[in-house]
Amino acid sequence: MQKLYIIKIGGNVLDDEQVLNSFLKDFSSIQYPKILVHGGGKIATKIGDKMGIESNYVNGRRITDQPTRDLVTMVYGGLINRQIVTTLQHNNCNAIGLTGADGNVIKAVKRPVGDIDFGFVGDIEPKNVNTSFLYFLLKQNVVPVFAPLTYADGTLLNTNADTIASVLAIALSKHFNIRLIYCFEKKGVLKNVDDEGTVIRSIDTAYHHQLLQEKVLFDGILPKLENAFGAIHQGVNEVLIGHSADLLKNMGEETEGTLIRK
Amino acid sequence: MQKLYIIKIGGNVLDDEQVLNSFLKDFSSIQYPKILVHGGGKIATKIGDKMGIESNYVNGRRITDQPTRDLVTMVYGGLINRQIVTTLQHNNCNAIGLTGADGNVIKAVKRPVGDIDFGFVGDIEPKNVNTSFLYFLLKQNVVPVFAPLTYADGTLLNTNADTIASVLAIALSKHFNIRLIYCFEKKGVLKNVDDEGTVIRSIDTAYHHQLLQEKVLFDGILPKLENAFGAIHQGVNEVLIGHSADLLKNMGEETEGTLIRK
Repeated sequence: MQKLYIIKIGGNVLDDEQVLNSFLKDFSSIQYPKILVHGGGKIATKIGDKMGIESNYVNGRRITDQPTRDLVTMVYGGLINRQIVTTLQHNNCNAIGLTGADGNVIKAVKRPVGDIDFGFVGDIEPKNVNTSFLYFLLKQNVVPVFAPLTYADGTLLNTNADTIASVLAIALSKHFNIRLIYCFEKKGVLKNVDDEGTVIRSIDTAYHHQLLQEKVLFDGILPKLENAFGAIHQGVNEVLIGHSADLLKNMGEETEGTLIRK
Repeated sequence: MQKLYIIKIGGNVLDDEQVLNSFLKDFSSIQYPKILVHGGGKIATKIGDKMGIESNYVNGRRITDQPTRDLVTMVYGGLINRQIVTTLQHNNCNAIGLTGADGNVIKAVKRPVGDIDFGFVGDIEPKNVNTSFLYFLLKQNVVPVFAPLTYADGTLLNTNADTIASVLAIALSKHFNIRLIYCFEKKGVLKNVDDEGTVIRSIDTAYHHQLLQEKVLFDGILPKLENAFGAIHQGVNEVLIGHSADLLKNMGEETEGTLIRK
């Protein structure tokens, strides 16, 4: 099967224009089919502050009320997504900006109200990805760029970008040999969280269990590894966790970051 | 050749949610290949006011400085465009939201600085429309929805929506038998501007000249007719000027609005 890179970037890339532009230049030079998924970063909060839209939290978790939904539609789906696409075109990468609603690519379910009403938040599953349209775009050498928004019942829904990346990877694993890359603020999974020289180059299921028993990993990385193995066990070939500046060094068999396989 | 409807809506549809939703329901029910082009309306000014972004005018013409460019990227390319697409999906119309940068569909030239520097404004020509990508989308039964933004040299550019609609129509007239529809605040071109009962049902080149000589038309409609005949003389089959509420009555040979042909 043909290779496909699905690459996710978050605040540490998006919030610094120079870092973002340098990343997008590297991304453009990848000669394989590829998909970019971006998060939101701090820009929405900054613009929300200017507009007098408050960020509401319940038990430390952000609530997407209607003004916040419209704010992220503007910032994630407009400002960030359109500017990334325009910069990629300038680098001769034929990108197209998508939310889940565009081309019906990712239909969600609005998160049911339990103890907390998260508001306009979407939960998604691989079976609700329109893989045939994405396949068609990729075959035209068009590069999909996803904003962290999906939709249901006529409304856009705020959706976690890490989840969009893994759900896309799982859904497209029928058609492609996928490397899912999470750009991270560190060079990879570190044995010693304070020492960038201790990147673990590769982790398989057995080694993951061993690391968990040894309790050497720092807490922040545990859910990321959990998600990575979740994707691996649903058909994704490889997950790589690495720094955005190392993107081009994380394409092949030898990597700077941490390569995760079954 | 197959029929294609290219339909442009502006502030009189966009600024009233109920009118917009009713229009989008009608639009969704059109069984032919179709493209929607939307303007900006008053929403950008309203949000700009909240954010403290001033509208700058020189000789009565709006200037797109950098804060305004970012504002229209958010509002036209994000809020309005993404919400229209989401509503269309809810009406079972498989829409996709595009700026000129997405899929490289419309490359512009930044308007050269003359007596006035208009700032981030794009001028466009039919030859710079990526018709093959649009043709592919239309053949997949995907409905392109254009925000009034194009791009050049790595920046998005504010672009007149009427012009986007006519440039798309001219460029696609090689592949399709096109009816370009401008949704207007009146039912059509009126012989007596104060009487909606005086719609002129059809105008051809000869009758246009006669109307100009008789000086019966009100000034506001003259540039619209000029643009319409410009499109007609560059390959577009028909231009229709009519009210958004009459959309479905303006599809066939009998129309409520004004049908313009060579």
